[in-house]
Parts: sequence; C-alpha cells; structure tokens
Amino acid sequence: MNTAEMPAPAIAAADLQDFVAALFAKAGVPDADAATVADCLVQADLRGVVSHGVGRVPIYLHRIAIGLVDPHAPLAVTELAPVAALVDGANGLGFVTASRAMAEAMARAGRCGMGLAYVRRGTHFGMAASYLLQAIAGGYAAFVFTNASPAMPIWGGRTPFLGTSPFAFGAPGGIDGPPLVLDMATSVVARGKIRRAAASGGTIPAGWALDRDGNPTTDAKAAYDGIILPLGGPKGSGLSLMMEVLGGVMSGAAFGGEVGNQYADEDRPQDVGHLFIALRPDLAVSAADYRARMDALASRAKACPPVEPGAEILFPGEPEARLAARRQREGIPLSAEDRAGLAQAAAKFGLTLPAFLA
Amino acid sequence: MNTAEMPAPAIAAADLQDFVAALFAKAGVPDADAATVADCLVQADLRGVVSHGVGRVPIYLHRIAIGLVDPHAPLAVTELAPVAALVDGANGLGFVTASRAMAEAMARAGRCGMGLAYVRRGTHFGMAASYLLQAIAGGYAAFVFTNASPAMPIWGGRTPFLGTSPFAFGAPGGIDGPPLVLDMATSVVARGKIRRAAASGGTIPAGWALDRDGNPTTDAKAAYDGIILPLGGPKGSGLSLMMEVLGGVMSGAAFGGEVGNQYADEDRPQDVGHLFIALRPDLAVSAADYRARMDALASRAKACPPVEPGAEILFPGEPEARLAARRQREGIPLSAEDRAGLAQAAAKFGLTLPAFLA
Repeated sequence: MNTAEMPAPAIAAADLQDFVAALFAKAGVPDADAATVADCLVQADLRGVVSHGVGRVPIYLHRIAIGLVDPHAPLAVTELAPVAALVDGANGLGFVTASRAMAEAMARAGRCGMGLAYVRRGTHFGMAASYLLQAIAGGYAAFVFTNASPAMPIWGGRTPFLGTSPFAFGAPGGIDGPPLVLDMATSVVARGKIRRAAASGGTIPAGWALDRDGNPTTDAKAAYDGIILPLGGPKGSGLSLMMEVLGGVMSGAAFGGEVGNQYADEDRPQDVGHLFIALRPDLAVSAADYRARMDALASRAKACPPVEPGAEILFPGEPEARLAARRQREGIPLSAEDRAGLAQAAAKFGLTLPAFLA
Repeated sequence: MNTAEMPAPAIAAADLQDFVAALFAKAGVPDADAATVADCLVQADLRGVVSHGVGRVPIYLHRIAIGLVDPHAPLAVTELAPVAALVDGANGLGFVTASRAMAEAMARAGRCGMGLAYVRRGTHFGMAASYLLQAIAGGYAAFVFTNASPAMPIWGGRTPFLGTSPFAFGAPGGIDGPPLVLDMATSVVARGKIRRAAASGGTIPAGWALDRDGNPTTDAKAAYDGIILPLGGPKGSGLSLMMEVLGGVMSGAAFGGEVGNQYADEDRPQDVGHLFIALRPDLAVSAADYRARMDALASRAKACPPVEPGAEILFPGEPEARLAARRQREGIPLSAEDRAGLAQAAAKFGLTLPAFLA
C-alpha cells in the first residue's frame, strides 16, 4: 500500500472509547452514562456504520450545550401491564434511554416469555443494532422500532413526512453459526449516508432521492435538503408508517411529522418515540434445539450456490461483525472530518488532545 | 362499457361464500371450519387479492383428497409461558389453524398487554391480512410472521432458499381514519402474481425474477419455475430470513428450505410455521387518545401534497378496504379460470352448479 494514501493510522477501539467517554463526562454526563454513549458510538465505527459513529459526537455535545438534551435526565419507568413498561426519557441521551428500555423489555421477557418497553421524550439513539446486540448478548430475540424526524414522503406524497428509521430485528445464533442482526433503513439508503456525502460535497447514485422540488437528483446536498425515496415504494413507506404507529402513536411521543430533527430544530427537544420488544427464543423449542436449528439454518444458507463463484453467503449483520472483529485487532480508521470534530470538541472542553488525534 | 368485454356478471359475496363453504363441507370439513375457509378466501377476492382468493379452492381440496391436509385435524394448544401458546396445526386447513392461533394471541394480549402464538404443522393460510383484520376487529395491533416453501434466494445465492411470505402488521384506526393493514411480500412481487401470470401463459415485468439458470426473464412460466428476486436485495432477503427464524426455527416447524410447496410436493405435509403477536394499542396512552392520535396521523398524512395533483394519499390496506366495500355492494368479478376451477370442484362433489357459475 502506498503510504501517501494513508491519511492517519487506525485508532485502537479502547482508546477511542475512553476519549469519547471523557468528552461526554466533561459535558456533564455521569460516568456510567458517558461509557454507554461511547460504547454505542465506537461499536458503530467498529462495524463500519460510520454514519452512526463518533462522527456524531459534535451534534450530541451541541444538543447538550444548548439545553435540548439533559445529561442528568431522571429516567422514569412506569409499569403498564405484566409484560409492558413505559420509559420517560426526559430528553436524556438517547443511548442511555434506549439501553435502559431494552433492559426493561428483556427483564419482562425473562419473567413472561416476551416483554416490551415504550419510550417517549427520547432523543437520537444512534445505531439500532446496538440494542439488538444488547438483547442477543442476554439470550433474547428483539425488535427495535423508532420514529424519526420527517425525511421521506409517505407513498403518494412529495414532501417529507415519515422518518427513515431502520427496521431492526435480531436473534441469537447457534453454537457455531452467526446471530441474525437485521438493521435496515426503510428508505432506499440510510439518511446518514446522504448526510455524509453532502458534508463532503459529493454525489449520490440516481434513484436515492429527490431534491426539494421533487425532481430526481444525484447532488448529495440537494438530496439531504430534499426527499429520500422509500424502499420499494409503498413497502418502505408502509414499514416507516408502522414505526410511526408503534414508536410514536402508541408510546405517547411526537408523531406524524412532529419529531424534531436534531440538526435543524433548535427550538425544542426531539421527543422521539421508540418501542423495544424482547422475546425468549426457546419458548416452543428447547434452548439446545433453538441453537441447533439456528446452526442448521446458517449452514444450509451457506451451502446455497453463490451468485459470484467462491463467494460466501452471509447472514444480515455478519459482514459488520467480521469487520468489527478485525477493527478490534487492527484499530478503527477515522475520516479527517470525524477526527477534526473530535479535536474541536477536545479543545472546547480543555481536554488534552490524545496522540491518536494529533 | 362494451358488453362483449364483460366475461360474466359479478357474483354476490354472500353467494360465493356459501358455495365455497358448501364445497369444503362436501370435502369433509366441519361446517364452522368450512365457513372460516370460505370467509378468508372470499375476503381476499373482495379486497382484490386474487392471488389468494377462491382461485385456490382446487389446490386446498386436492391436498385434502390426497390426505396431506386433514379436515378433522385436532388442533392442540399448549401453554408455553404467561403470554405464549403453541398451536399444533396437525396438518389441518391453514385458515382454521391461523384463525385459532391469532385468537390465542389476542386472548393473552387481553390478559397481559401482549400475547403470542406459534404454529407448527401448519399449512397455507391464504392472505395474511385476514388475521390482521381479525386482530383489528378485536381492538388489537398484530404481527403475522410465516415461513414458506423456497422460492427466493438468500442474498448472495442463486437458488431458491427463502419463502416470499409477506411481512404483515396491522393496527386499529381512529374514529374517522383508516386502520393500518400492511401485508407486503418480501419479494419484489407476490409469488401468487407470477403463478397466475404463468397459468395464463403471460409475461411479467423485467426485474421481478430469474429463470432456473439464474438469467433475467420476463416469461412468467420460466419465472415461476425459477427464482423470484427479493425486495431491495439484502433487505427483502433479511426480512424473509427473519420469518424463517420467527416462524420456523422458533416454532418447531420445518425451516431452512424444508417447508413443502403445496403445488409441487405431494410426498409430505407442508409443515409451515407461523408466529402471531397481538398487542393492546392502549398501554401507554388511553384508548381514546390512541384513536385520536391515529386520526391525527391519517389526517396529517392525507394533507401531504400529492405527487399526482388531486390524488388522495392512502394508508396501507386502504385501497383494498375501499375495493372490498364496493365489491360487497356490486359483487365480485371472477376470472374464467377461477370460475372453471369452482365448477370442476362442484362437479366432483356432486354439488349443483349455482346459477352464478353456469
């Protein structure tokens, strides 16, 4: 490899995590919560989901600075039914609220077989897969549903109304085989990818988005200011509308176009709504049978003849898990933009710039 | 309208339902179950989902005739956990098993806030929306997950492995507004549409399917013998794999390519697996608030500027509900193929051919 092409050495995940946690602690976030935030953000960068990684640190710190995210939010959990809880996020950091809500859903699933937790007064919680992985680590299958600020038209409309929040489902794997970690935007592409392309003045493929006037565009900035197209037309629109109902209408959070955009709306907290569902996978089959059946599913899937000769067939989430394992060993490459954002935040809080950012 | 273009007068839904129920009763199905089957099939034709309507009567009767569907199947319900039941379908008619399973999930949701029922030894249950509508009529939101015989490759593969079963979610509407009834194939298009095009020797649009050798095709027969493409590549593949896990792996039914195709596999019962989840929508908000919020969501959605000037924006399931209301008044137009299938079945069982089929 030509060293001229290497912008900066990769950063050890643990170092990055400590630094990001220190930044949030400086911003007034309790240590345990700062660790949760740092863990989720670095996890996204480990998995290659750069749109939801430490590049977002500046916006979260900014929302704290202007008082729209409360680092000391007193999370309140209300019992709704034997299997159901409501978590009032009180405009705290979304990572902390979402982790707590998934834990509440898991506790109820442990007692009853299946459990749920709604969240109202939530804020941006990063990568949905973080909470799927939390559930899987505890032995549960899980769904994560959230609404989001308007970015995509409802099918038949031409102005932003629905969020592009992901449909997210996870299930534990077997003994040898991978878990299933499905975290897919309901738009043709995740909005964060367009945001990052716009930030670097780039272009996007045709078919991803319309501009503000409803015309097709490949200009990332025009697309970010415009309209992202739903996956498969009415299907992606229907999935996103489902998340408005489950995450917004049913939770008591904002819904139907009223969720705040954390970048654009500085007049109010976001009031995002979520629904977390956890499910024991060993209700109808034994735990051992479940694991054996998941292994059989994976090995049969991988035995399918591939489109590209010699290519391996992977489960949803498997490419990300492999990348994360490699980056745990080799470090995380950060873009110049992400490094600059972290360096500025360090300067603001009087934190010594770590060597890996210098 | 030119009367030469009108192949046959529309049939009153009640008449069609009575006739179909009589056919199944003649095949040995208990009256109440025959009524359930007829109700689901005619409901599909009312809603314009012709791929899952009375055109399928011959295959269900054939599976009974060859002993692979048991009209007297003793459904067995096992308690798995406070919120969870397992229904052993015992190779009975899928409509009957699925209706019972959704009822079990609803009963548990009534007691606990949310409930589920798995099904193993299930058979083809028709249109997933039937069970969403059953839940909505009882005041519940619901998910229906099912696996299916292999018809679509997993992402990266080139042979059929996954089913094209629909992702299905429903939620009650408000006072004035529509419910949400999302019933979407995880393939680019529902397999039944390709089956019907193949039966009439027709063609299909490019991008729907590959032939048996993995080449793009617009020949419906070649496509039906070949491979349907997943919605959005890895996304549709991921959704279908999720249904393998929820419907197949977790239920104890067949999975991973082993579910029988009711048209092609006459050596064994299908052993389809399902998961039904029912959810009270008024856990975190009151029932009155839920209805008001659903009405607000619908009215805000419908206030979005439409792509086509003057067009109305509709919720998922709303076009089908409107068509059903019209067909309840005006009757159901049946294709010559569907009429012939019913006439042949009547002749076989010695039922007088009703005037509307003569």
